[in-house]
Amino acid sequence: MIRSLKKNSKAKGLPPGTLVHVGEKKTDKTRITVIAYGQNNFEEKEVKNIEECFPYKDNGHISWINVDGIHQTEVIEKLGKQFGLHPLVLEDIVNTEQRPKMEDYGDYLYIVLKMIYLNNQADLIMSEQVSLVLGKDLVISFQERAGDVFEPIRERFRTAKGRIRQFGADYLAYALLDAIVDGYFAILEKTGERIEVVEQKVAVDPKPKTLQLIHQLKSDMVFLRKSIWPLREVLCGLQRNESSLIQGSTAVYLRDVYDHTIRVAESIESYREMVSGLLDIYLSSVSNRMNEVMKVLTVIATIFIPLTFVAGIYGMNFKYMPELEWHWAYFAVLGVMAVIGLVMVYYFRKKKWF
Amino acid sequence: MIRSLKKNSKAKGLPPGTLVHVGEKKTDKTRITVIAYGQNNFEEKEVKNIEECFPYKDNGHISWINVDGIHQTEVIEKLGKQFGLHPLVLEDIVNTEQRPKMEDYGDYLYIVLKMIYLNNQADLIMSEQVSLVLGKDLVISFQERAGDVFEPIRERFRTAKGRIRQFGADYLAYALLDAIVDGYFAILEKTGERIEVVEQKVAVDPKPKTLQLIHQLKSDMVFLRKSIWPLREVLCGLQRNESSLIQGSTAVYLRDVYDHTIRVAESIESYREMVSGLLDIYLSSVSNRMNEVMKVLTVIATIFIPLTFVAGIYGMNFKYMPELEWHWAYFAVLGVMAVIGLVMVYYFRKKKWF
Amino acid sequence: MIRSLKKNSKAKGLPPGTLVHVGEKKTDKTRITVIAYGQNNFEEKEVKNIEECFPYKDNGHISWINVDGIHQTEVIEKLGKQFGLHPLVLEDIVNTEQRPKMEDYGDYLYIVLKMIYLNNQADLIMSEQVSLVLGKDLVISFQERAGDVFEPIRERFRTAKGRIRQFGADYLAYALLDAIVDGYFAILEKTGERIEVVEQKVAVDPKPKTLQLIHQLKSDMVFLRKSIWPLREVLCGLQRNESSLIQGSTAVYLRDVYDHTIRVAESIESYREMVSGLLDIYLSSVSNRMNEVMKVLTVIATIFIPLTFVAGIYGMNFKYMPELEWHWAYFAVLGVMAVIGLVMVYYFRKKKWF
Amino acid sequence: MIRSLKKNSKAKGLPPGTLVHVGEKKTDKTRITVIAYGQNNFEEKEVKNIEECFPYKDNGHISWINVDGIHQTEVIEKLGKQFGLHPLVLEDIVNTEQRPKMEDYGDYLYIVLKMIYLNNQADLIMSEQVSLVLGKDLVISFQERAGDVFEPIRERFRTAKGRIRQFGADYLAYALLDAIVDGYFAILEKTGERIEVVEQKVAVDPKPKTLQLIHQLKSDMVFLRKSIWPLREVLCGLQRNESSLIQGSTAVYLRDVYDHTIRVAESIESYREMVSGLLDIYLSSVSNRMNEVMKVLTVIATIFIPLTFVAGIYGMNFKYMPELEWHWAYFAVLGVMAVIGLVMVYYFRKKKWF
Amino acid sequence: MIRSLKKNSKAKGLPPGTLVHVGEKKTDKTRITVIAYGQNNFEEKEVKNIEECFPYKDNGHISWINVDGIHQTEVIEKLGKQFGLHPLVLEDIVNTEQRPKMEDYGDYLYIVLKMIYLNNQADLIMSEQVSLVLGKDLVISFQERAGDVFEPIRERFRTAKGRIRQFGADYLAYALLDAIVDGYFAILEKTGERIEVVEQKVAVDPKPKTLQLIHQLKSDMVFLRKSIWPLREVLCGLQRNESSLIQGSTAVYLRDVYDHTIRVAESIESYREMVSGLLDIYLSSVSNRMNEVMKVLTVIATIFIPLTFVAGIYGMNFKYMPELEWHWAYFAVLGVMAVIGLVMVYYFRKKKWF
Repeated sequence: MIRSLKKNSKAKGLPPGTLVHVGEKKTDKTRITVIAYGQNNFEEKEVKNIEECFPYKDNGHISWINVDGIHQTEVIEKLGKQFGLHPLVLEDIVNTEQRPKMEDYGDYLYIVLKMIYLNNQADLIMSEQVSLVLGKDLVISFQERAGDVFEPIRERFRTAKGRIRQFGADYLAYALLDAIVDGYFAILEKTGERIEVVEQKVAVDPKPKTLQLIHQLKSDMVFLRKSIWPLREVLCGLQRNESSLIQGSTAVYLRDVYDHTIRVAESIESYREMVSGLLDIYLSSVSNRMNEVMKVLTVIATIFIPLTFVAGIYGMNFKYMPELEWHWAYFAVLGVMAVIGLVMVYYFRKKKWF
Repeated sequence: MIRSLKKNSKAKGLPPGTLVHVGEKKTDKTRITVIAYGQNNFEEKEVKNIEECFPYKDNGHISWINVDGIHQTEVIEKLGKQFGLHPLVLEDIVNTEQRPKMEDYGDYLYIVLKMIYLNNQADLIMSEQVSLVLGKDLVISFQERAGDVFEPIRERFRTAKGRIRQFGADYLAYALLDAIVDGYFAILEKTGERIEVVEQKVAVDPKPKTLQLIHQLKSDMVFLRKSIWPLREVLCGLQRNESSLIQGSTAVYLRDVYDHTIRVAESIESYREMVSGLLDIYLSSVSNRMNEVMKVLTVIATIFIPLTFVAGIYGMNFKYMPELEWHWAYFAVLGVMAVIGLVMVYYFRKKKWF
Repeated sequence: MIRSLKKNSKAKGLPPGTLVHVGEKKTDKTRITVIAYGQNNFEEKEVKNIEECFPYKDNGHISWINVDGIHQTEVIEKLGKQFGLHPLVLEDIVNTEQRPKMEDYGDYLYIVLKMIYLNNQADLIMSEQVSLVLGKDLVISFQERAGDVFEPIRERFRTAKGRIRQFGADYLAYALLDAIVDGYFAILEKTGERIEVVEQKVAVDPKPKTLQLIHQLKSDMVFLRKSIWPLREVLCGLQRNESSLIQGSTAVYLRDVYDHTIRVAESIESYREMVSGLLDIYLSSVSNRMNEVMKVLTVIATIFIPLTFVAGIYGMNFKYMPELEWHWAYFAVLGVMAVIGLVMVYYFRKKKWF
Repeated sequence: MIRSLKKNSKAKGLPPGTLVHVGEKKTDKTRITVIAYGQNNFEEKEVKNIEECFPYKDNGHISWINVDGIHQTEVIEKLGKQFGLHPLVLEDIVNTEQRPKMEDYGDYLYIVLKMIYLNNQADLIMSEQVSLVLGKDLVISFQERAGDVFEPIRERFRTAKGRIRQFGADYLAYALLDAIVDGYFAILEKTGERIEVVEQKVAVDPKPKTLQLIHQLKSDMVFLRKSIWPLREVLCGLQRNESSLIQGSTAVYLRDVYDHTIRVAESIESYREMVSGLLDIYLSSVSNRMNEVMKVLTVIATIFIPLTFVAGIYGMNFKYMPELEWHWAYFAVLGVMAVIGLVMVYYFRKKKWF
Repeated sequence: MIRSLKKNSKAKGLPPGTLVHVGEKKTDKTRITVIAYGQNNFEEKEVKNIEECFPYKDNGHISWINVDGIHQTEVIEKLGKQFGLHPLVLEDIVNTEQRPKMEDYGDYLYIVLKMIYLNNQADLIMSEQVSLVLGKDLVISFQERAGDVFEPIRERFRTAKGRIRQFGADYLAYALLDAIVDGYFAILEKTGERIEVVEQKVAVDPKPKTLQLIHQLKSDMVFLRKSIWPLREVLCGLQRNESSLIQGSTAVYLRDVYDHTIRVAESIESYREMVSGLLDIYLSSVSNRMNEVMKVLTVIATIFIPLTFVAGIYGMNFKYMPELEWHWAYFAVLGVMAVIGLVMVYYFRKKKWF
């Protein structure tokens, strides 16, 4: 989160609508693919040049233009001009620090949200910003890098499986949103497993490192919450949107994604509560172990200090100490010491002090 | 809760409306029973084959089709097709990770909620997903396994007790909801007893195991809250629903179930607060006992250390130590030691240090 | 609160509207009194038989029927049938676990709330459920036992003091609500005194028993809150109610009770906060006392341990220890010890360590 | 707060509208002053007898009747009757336990709020209830005792400074509210200074007395919040009020007071947060000091215990202990002890243990 | 925050609308600059005398009057009179303790907010109050001192870069707001870095000074929150404002600033949560280190106390202690002591007690 604010000042002082890429450059070259389809036809191609996808505007088919890589602002700018996007929309597309939102520009809807996935090597939660523009018979999607959760959707287009080619651009936009939200469940699943691992560590062997893990989990929860919570409003808004761009039949599907988002959001809240609980248990567990140790040590000291006192008495050099002369006194004292020690051990045990 | 997210990724990447059973398979065979009734007639039978219950659609009677076991997706699919259910509804029915919700599809209402009961052997809180479809003169209910809280309702049908046969399908749906919500009270009662048990343990003998019990109670509260809270909105929505499927006279009854749900929800909140209080008392109680022990031990050490010092003095080997020569010096010193010890004990006692 | 859920499962599985008394049986016999009045007439009598009060329906006068004892469900049922009450209302009347609510049944309003009073013997907060039915020229009140806060109202009827006989049934209902809410102030007063007592105990002499008192106060606050908070909505609803049963002139009075309820609710919240603060002070106070004790004990040990070491040195049996031979060495060492001890005491004092 | 509920039960059981003074009697005699003014005239006088101010009703001028002392209920009652105030209004005026509220009675508005000021002797926050009745060309104000924050307003009348004589009674009411709210800022200023003082004490020398100061601050915050927060709604309501008693031009001024109230309320919230922070720092600071002390003491003990052990060894009386015979053994042992001691000191220092 | 309330009482008792400068005097002389522009023309000048900018009222161009320094109330008063500003607006302009707000006076909108920047020398967060008056073809801005974040906007005017000269006064007001909000991101960035620094300190070497840093961060968060949060409502209000002063095309831009403010507000919340987490880690870290130290010290004491006891036994002076006579007894005892010591060390190590 700290990171996420670092580069924003780059754009400071420029007039609004100036395209400045804010964020890490995650890919080398912008890659554009187009899928055009209707009830009976389907075409998929990768365009080398941004101008190649201009004919897909209002050509009678439904077109899905996908842009991987948003750091080449001139490409985004050309596309924006051709498809009539507002400068502020373009500015938001190339600035990767947006919070999920939906904006209705009359001719088109602009939706921005976060695609979240796991970095397999390091168990890190990664996040990529996805912008969707839903126009008439048109969906344009912008991603930060190649590789996404949309592959099954492309496959459905290719095999004509599912309803996707029967429906309009709004259903396509729904399908993309659904794919992203479905991805959140995998993150939750992994996070659940991590919480379970920490839960066991906390109970068995609490260490400062465990505290770090809990802190890391807490930060992840804050991050996930920040990335996903505003999506609820976005989808609620979409579902109730009176824009002519969304047909009544799609609203049912949007309600379904909305529902999934609510479930994800509630799970994040439950996890947050569980992680807070882990911290309590960790602290209580550490303090408990410490107490146990101190108690045992103190019990040992407490038993030997009176005994040492007894030994000290008979170590005194008084001339007249009758006991010293008695023949079995030494053994008697040893016996008395043993009795004192055992009585104390018995008493402490009975009191369950160690 | 962690569990509840594990299997959801099974459905990832499939087109919406594809039926995939998500959840534990809790029964071997899907079992379907039909109850058809009117003011003057009543029929109850178990159907072997899903096709047998197709005639119950729009046959002039009110029909209640109950399906136990939802893992045979082909059965659910056939039923859905025959009774005109939306693919998303069918998808939700077979996915047991729904949160309680109500959806109005015009022709029918889809309600999903959790039936909660106790596993008698292990005192565990179990939860099963129940889906209700309320159509015209039709209620279809889906459960994860055989055995439910609906038996008294069936009995009322058989004996024609109560108003149930005079009213329509909406009243039947109400009766089913009411039976499920009534079941929550038993859970609350049991949970209350468990809290009482832990409350006594915490006061009398706090142990790490008690902490686990508190943690378990806390998790149960989170689980119950997650399962039951959304039901308030569902019932509030149902009660205010303008659907022609619900008659005005039933709305009063729905208000009553709504009221019960509010009471359950409030009790869960009160329990949550009590469990939090238990944690505070546990921590304070443990720390108190520890303090008592340490105090007693430290008092013992503190009394004997100065005495040992006195003994140490007369253990020194100086040539000229006049006291050593005095005849009763040894006993005098012993007496002085006793006085010092008693004064300290008296002082500590007076200060209520142990 | 735990108690309050125990007996609810008695009603489980019965058809809605079946009258089952839920709650403790607090009186032996149901006792019914009727007060009928108009501008110029007034009649008060106790009826032996429920049928005796049937003529008071629509007889031109305003009637107040008060029922003490709700465990005789057949009495409630007859009354309900005669005055046209909905079965669910009757069910709620005999189930003492209701949360305060108001329901508009068109012909009549049903209000249920808690009358709270102190058990004088044991300083316990007691609660009794009061149901009010406000019909045209009719108020029926149901209480769990004889003895209530309505006596001053009856007295006003008898002496024709105040406006009560000039106004309608809605004003009577208001007067009953007002009497109950006024009773809450006495509870708050008593609770305030109890908090003050605990506040002093916490500062002067914190003991585990004090912690129990704090816990008890906390539970009482939860109980009061649960009993009284929903009343705000009830009175807010009543005041805004467009029912023809409530005249405009009474709305001003209802606003006044509403206002009182808000004040009670806010005081409960303040008390909750104060009780939480007490817990913090208790914990801090206990830990402070413990720290003081440990510090003093440790200081004593720390002063004598080095002195004992010095004594130990001259207790060694080396052949050649020149100091031992010196004539005043013993007293010199005693002097050195005294100096060491005093320096340490001075240093610790200066550092304010004890 | 506890105090504020003590005397309320005095009014219990009386019919609504019965005037009973609830609160401390803060002045001996009720004192009534009248200011009557128009664009061109101004009259100020103190009336001996309540009847003297009756002519000021609807006499063409704007009148401000100020009543200091509300315990003479018969005076309030006469005034109320003459100016047509509702009995419930009169009841609220003489009961000093009101929470700030505004009630619209059509002909007049009734506003009640708290005037807060510092008791100079004891740094105590004092509070007095002020009731305002805003009628047509009439403002009646009721205070608990003589002496108020309204003096500058009277001065403005006398010197015709400011707009006050050009405007109507609503502007006068605004001016009174404004004067009271302005007084809150002085309280906040003083409270800010007190927090600063405690902040320094907490850092430099945390003592149990500091904890009491923090607790006192916390209570004051609760008190201020309770007295001032509801005022936000009152002023929000006044500003949006559609009553013909408030002219459009005054609404701007009311928005300004509303704004001030919001600022006061937000400052109180900030202070609450700061006081909570102080408690955390206090606890951490106390525990820190305790830890430092214990650490130093334990280090001292830990250094001398092994040395004492060494001395103990050579204090043993074995016949054959060759070292005892060696000539320089004693000094060698002393040297070894010094080395052990210094190594331990060095090690502990390096580890930053003290 | 404490500071922010200190001087407010200066204005106490004065009639509303009296101009009293509340706040620190941050500049010597009031400096006024005017920028007048249209589609084709542009003029920028600094005026010596306030009267010089009077002709810019309604002269057909769009004018931006910027006032640096608000302590010369007579200048503000003249300006206000000339441009028809309400006395309360002028009072708010010269009182620097406003919370961000927007007020619609029909002819003009009054907006007040905080410009926040870093004091480079001391890493302190500084805040300056900026008032904007948006009239027809007119923007007047008031700042506390010279030097602001508006320079890039002036530059855009001079170079005719961006859309700024094509749009009206509402767009100019938007541009000013946008510049201020953009400045918040720099503060957040810096704060993020500070949190990171403290985060590392807390983990590596927690000291009381670190606690002070955390407390400072917490106060800064409270300050930022107080300064920025109300801005959300301001911008939400502006964006939905139906005033004819704001054109539809500008609303899109205002939505964008609103969006930025939401992001800033959410980041502040995240930071607050992180700082709270830091406090938890600090406390746990300090307590952990303390525990480690105490454990090692106690282990040392615990090992030597029993050994000293053994030495004490053979230091006793009993006449008949056979062991003393044995030849190798001394070395045997030394060996036994070593074994006891090593066993204890081994046991404690195995138990991971140090």
